[in-house]
Amino acid sequence: MLDFFFRPQSVAIVGASRNPEKLGHAVLSNIINSGFPGRVYPVNPKAQALMGLPCYPSVLEIPDPVELAIIVIPYPYVPAVVEQCGQKGVKGIVVISAGFREASLEGVEREREVMEIARRYGMRLIGPNCLGIIDTTTPFNGTFAAGMPPRGPMAFMSQSGALGTAVLDIAMAGRIGFSKFVSLGNKADVSEADLLEAWADDPDTRVILIYVEGLPDGQQFIEVARRVTQRKPVVAVKSGSTQAGARAVSSHTGSLAGSEAAYQAAFRQAGVLRAASMEALFDYALAFAHQPLLPGDRIAIVTNAGGPGILATDALERAGLRLAALTSETIAHLESLLPGAASTHNPVDVLGDALADRYEGALRAVLSDPGVDGLLVILTPQAMTEIEKTAQVVGELASAQQEKPVLGCFMGEHRIEAGVRILQQYGVPNYPFPERAAEAFRAMATYRRERMRPLPTLETFDDVDRGRVADLFARVRAEGRVTVGDAEARAVAQAYGLRVPQSALARNPDEAVEVADRIGYPVALKIASPDILHKTEIGGVKLNLQTPADVRDAFELLTYRAMRYVPDARLWGCQVQEMFLGGREVLVGMSRDPQFGPLVAFGLGGIYVETLKDVVFRLAPFTRQEALEMIREIRAYALLAGVRGEPRADHDAIVEVLLRVSQLVTDFPEIVEMDINPLIVFEEGRGAVAVDMRLVLEGRSEG
Amino acid sequence: MLDFFFRPQSVAIVGASRNPEKLGHAVLSNIINSGFPGRVYPVNPKAQALMGLPCYPSVLEIPDPVELAIIVIPYPYVPAVVEQCGQKGVKGIVVISAGFREASLEGVEREREVMEIARRYGMRLIGPNCLGIIDTTTPFNGTFAAGMPPRGPMAFMSQSGALGTAVLDIAMAGRIGFSKFVSLGNKADVSEADLLEAWADDPDTRVILIYVEGLPDGQQFIEVARRVTQRKPVVAVKSGSTQAGARAVSSHTGSLAGSEAAYQAAFRQAGVLRAASMEALFDYALAFAHQPLLPGDRIAIVTNAGGPGILATDALERAGLRLAALTSETIAHLESLLPGAASTHNPVDVLGDALADRYEGALRAVLSDPGVDGLLVILTPQAMTEIEKTAQVVGELASAQQEKPVLGCFMGEHRIEAGVRILQQYGVPNYPFPERAAEAFRAMATYRRERMRPLPTLETFDDVDRGRVADLFARVRAEGRVTVGDAEARAVAQAYGLRVPQSALARNPDEAVEVADRIGYPVALKIASPDILHKTEIGGVKLNLQTPADVRDAFELLTYRAMRYVPDARLWGCQVQEMFLGGREVLVGMSRDPQFGPLVAFGLGGIYVETLKDVVFRLAPFTRQEALEMIREIRAYALLAGVRGEPRADHDAIVEVLLRVSQLVTDFPEIVEMDINPLIVFEEGRGAVAVDMRLVLEGRSEG
Repeated sequence: MLDFFFRPQSVAIVGASRNPEKLGHAVLSNIINSGFPGRVYPVNPKAQALMGLPCYPSVLEIPDPVELAIIVIPYPYVPAVVEQCGQKGVKGIVVISAGFREASLEGVEREREVMEIARRYGMRLIGPNCLGIIDTTTPFNGTFAAGMPPRGPMAFMSQSGALGTAVLDIAMAGRIGFSKFVSLGNKADVSEADLLEAWADDPDTRVILIYVEGLPDGQQFIEVARRVTQRKPVVAVKSGSTQAGARAVSSHTGSLAGSEAAYQAAFRQAGVLRAASMEALFDYALAFAHQPLLPGDRIAIVTNAGGPGILATDALERAGLRLAALTSETIAHLESLLPGAASTHNPVDVLGDALADRYEGALRAVLSDPGVDGLLVILTPQAMTEIEKTAQVVGELASAQQEKPVLGCFMGEHRIEAGVRILQQYGVPNYPFPERAAEAFRAMATYRRERMRPLPTLETFDDVDRGRVADLFARVRAEGRVTVGDAEARAVAQAYGLRVPQSALARNPDEAVEVADRIGYPVALKIASPDILHKTEIGGVKLNLQTPADVRDAFELLTYRAMRYVPDARLWGCQVQEMFLGGREVLVGMSRDPQFGPLVAFGLGGIYVETLKDVVFRLAPFTRQEALEMIREIRAYALLAGVRGEPRADHDAIVEVLLRVSQLVTDFPEIVEMDINPLIVFEEGRGAVAVDMRLVLEGRSEG
Repeated sequence: MLDFFFRPQSVAIVGASRNPEKLGHAVLSNIINSGFPGRVYPVNPKAQALMGLPCYPSVLEIPDPVELAIIVIPYPYVPAVVEQCGQKGVKGIVVISAGFREASLEGVEREREVMEIARRYGMRLIGPNCLGIIDTTTPFNGTFAAGMPPRGPMAFMSQSGALGTAVLDIAMAGRIGFSKFVSLGNKADVSEADLLEAWADDPDTRVILIYVEGLPDGQQFIEVARRVTQRKPVVAVKSGSTQAGARAVSSHTGSLAGSEAAYQAAFRQAGVLRAASMEALFDYALAFAHQPLLPGDRIAIVTNAGGPGILATDALERAGLRLAALTSETIAHLESLLPGAASTHNPVDVLGDALADRYEGALRAVLSDPGVDGLLVILTPQAMTEIEKTAQVVGELASAQQEKPVLGCFMGEHRIEAGVRILQQYGVPNYPFPERAAEAFRAMATYRRERMRPLPTLETFDDVDRGRVADLFARVRAEGRVTVGDAEARAVAQAYGLRVPQSALARNPDEAVEVADRIGYPVALKIASPDILHKTEIGGVKLNLQTPADVRDAFELLTYRAMRYVPDARLWGCQVQEMFLGGREVLVGMSRDPQFGPLVAFGLGGIYVETLKDVVFRLAPFTRQEALEMIREIRAYALLAGVRGEPRADHDAIVEVLLRVSQLVTDFPEIVEMDINPLIVFEEGRGAVAVDMRLVLEGRSEG
């Protein structure tokens, strides 16, 4: 897929130039210097030949078919050239030129125009406003970057071209290598999801890396990434994740950064690993690119220095990994190999005077221990340390097996350089400090967990009454409202199978007592009036009424208050509502993210949400498994699991509410906000009741 | 202070050797090669001369005075040589040899013997089991490391010698430079606190760096560090901070890692900055070493790339810094300088085609903005970027003023190398990724805040009755107990000025009602018996009794239960206790850390402590300011500050309880554990009551 971008038979460079200061010169010379095996056609009306190749005044004059066109001309001429490309039968276009959506309102228009032409001809387009694309296998360097990165198993896509130049420069230093490199620019057409799809089966790519500022079609990204991450790891840096950063994104590219909560949920649900910095991105990528996947979370450390061994132990524990417990056989074997002062327990300390052979014995023993899933080899350059020879040993032992990843932490700089290069040749990534190696192991462990999860199978409940909700929303909209009233919200909840409190309208105290007798005490009374929206503010609610007398008094008190504080209000009476004793109050909420759609929130009610911000998010629709994870991920989960002898809250009931809400907000895209607060959850087997529900519909101009 | 270690007039190397495989050879040649200006005396009975210097059979044979001796001989001979050093009048000894406390039980004994000799002669000792010491100003390299690090304003001390070798190798690559380097080894004598004291006034040292695994004399460290951090920044990496790491520490050096909570409190109270890794340690150190202190927390970014600008913005916000809001003058000025597509707001984007002069204009404008406290300059190596020239501009502008720190983030590798070297020459540290620069700014901001705090002045309350508590503890111990009973604990609390609930013993229901009438309702009743420790377990407590009838019933019920479930118990009656309505439950606790002494905890009561681990610690004694910080640092602080219309809890009352507890546990080192749980805090001005208190005394063999 999208092969014409990466392995074109022929490429035209529109705007190729002999002036070395021009980008069009850099692109042409990069293509030629990269050793591109296809045909190359410089296009420039002012030149006859460029770099020894015949030059054409326009794409249309090229005598042969053109598969890919790279456009590097001032923006006003771009639409016309794209039109010519269409006529020529070009399949893919890379627009390097800037001056589009990122620049101005006219730029937005111009970008739209270009895309209209491209779509008309069925052409795919990368950019505009980008650095270009690279495929090191073909080889093909269609960028204006300074040179070609080394070949390697990482494919990288970047929304920022400038960041791409830094990344390519880092790659050229030799530590990282790319299969493909794409600067996505404005993403007028080809997006992250397209490239993920295209690279999923690329045999040259073992790990896909993304730098992204915003994902306009978030849902599509999730849908594709979910599948791709089952095949190979995808690691992403998302910038604009703080408020200040989000403002910087929108002033930079005009694209929305979107809500951080939605991105977090999206990456999580799609199995995309998130790196906190570009440095971490490459640290993770190195491990995935060259080492086998981590089969478990038990890591062994072999070191010639106690201090760094402790730092590594701390870092692994903080990263959520476990320090492997070596078997007694391994320990006995190590005891026979190592000097008395050595530590034969994990972290294994071969001591400062260890030569390569002592490392070798220890590494062999530890690697063959069935309780070890991954290995970290630490080396400090001490007086007698055989750095290169030890690197050789590590490399050989790592490559001799393909089950357990081995990461290196040779610490230092000049003295270890040659050793690190040897490790690299064997595909053993080296990290300058143990903490960074530990974070790479963390990424590997997370990927393993994610990949072990089956692709989501979504449940839908057949017992919902979709038509009833549709009718109700139609009625609300017909009345020009966006807020759904109390009784209406209750009806929606019921239509989707949620349990709500029993409730009935009473027109006078006698009726109220009748209703209360039927429902059972205690009950709550709420003033019922279409003109009083904020009942609590006028004291229009009385809770926990225990007796008929209480109910009677409350009815009269509420009526009095309503008449006194809202004299013109139409009074229908009081709503008598079932009350619940005990149970935990939780919250289920939803807001609609502009990029990802319905974002469902779960947390404990009250102060937990307000002061501790202890809320977890998932994008709907989600699976039963994901719903269960939401419950378990809140910090105060212990309160639901049952602490201090309190009963465990009914998890199944919460899961079911979450799934039904997920279905509701997926079925009705017009719901933009929704809260069930509180949802009272009883002990195991006793269910949950949606006590209060708030629902806001999209404010449509038609409505 | 300790000048004889760093600037000795003369030094003897005991164990100097001609064999290049021996450490004694490396030490001697390092001293000679470092250009040490003092006199050097190799000591080795088997040689006449070494490296052109006359060699002596023993220290005693050296004809001139010897100020410093470095000992690199097998451990069995060390005590005798130390004795000779004493006789010779040596002032300082560095024992490089291993085979002491870290090795075996005999090693512990040998270390003690060596220290006895050293103390007898008034000699100071570094090590044993270390790499040696370096002073680059003298210059003097008394280590067996591979070479001498560049000179620079960082002084580094390390408990791990092996880590030291890696650090020195990194330094030799040129990015960091040291004034002094000390491998502390087993710290038989000279400790971190000694070196802090010695380096506080060292004019060659602008920042002090520490790698530490354990601080046996934690209180002394805090006391010294508190003063030193007022003069210059101290940055520390503490390893063994996780459980697994702590185990690794103790198996490595036999030293206790100590509780992480205590270290965190200690570093915090001493103003020592904590780095999470060695990489971070040097990242911070670079900023402190070469740039002025950060005068505020408003950072400006100037970049030629949008993406990295956003990453930097995110990172600064996450680091708790603020993005400087540029004045309208600055913005107008930038608009006049920069192309239309540039961003003139912070982050200032000078665009990908910016040459050095455009950077210069923007940097000048931003640096002179009064709303900017610090500046981050980002550069990606794009097609036209003038890397070295821009570095020159940044360096010149940074050094032309000494008020605002400037940090660099030139991203890439080979292409930016020369630029980074130029930055370095100007003392502008470069960070390869914006996140790391942001963390360095965070460290600078933290240091500024810490340094602005006055040295702690401790308050003591004169109204406490120390004698009464002393008597009480004596009585408890005389009875062979370590746990202090209910009424006793209440007496202790009262003696130290804490309010406790009114309470009295009632021998029968009538007396109980009498007491309750006097105290006021509601009250609690607790069975009173010296034989019933766990009252709640037999149902021996009734709370919230509202009426005389309730009290009467409860008395009889509790008596019945006690007789039924603990038939042999002596029954004294029931304790009638005042109950409190409303208020927030908080917890004040204390445990005694083996290295740092009394560690006082504060948190909200109940589930917050148990499930959310929302607790803050300080070492006693602490100041009023620190007590207030404890309250504000808990995550659920909003609950005390007043949310949802609830009243603000009485902060002064909590502070006073914390300070009185601090005084109590400082006055009585025999208190090893203590809990006030709950302390009920009322609204502002209404105080707090220590409802329940638990106290455990040290279990002495004499008691």
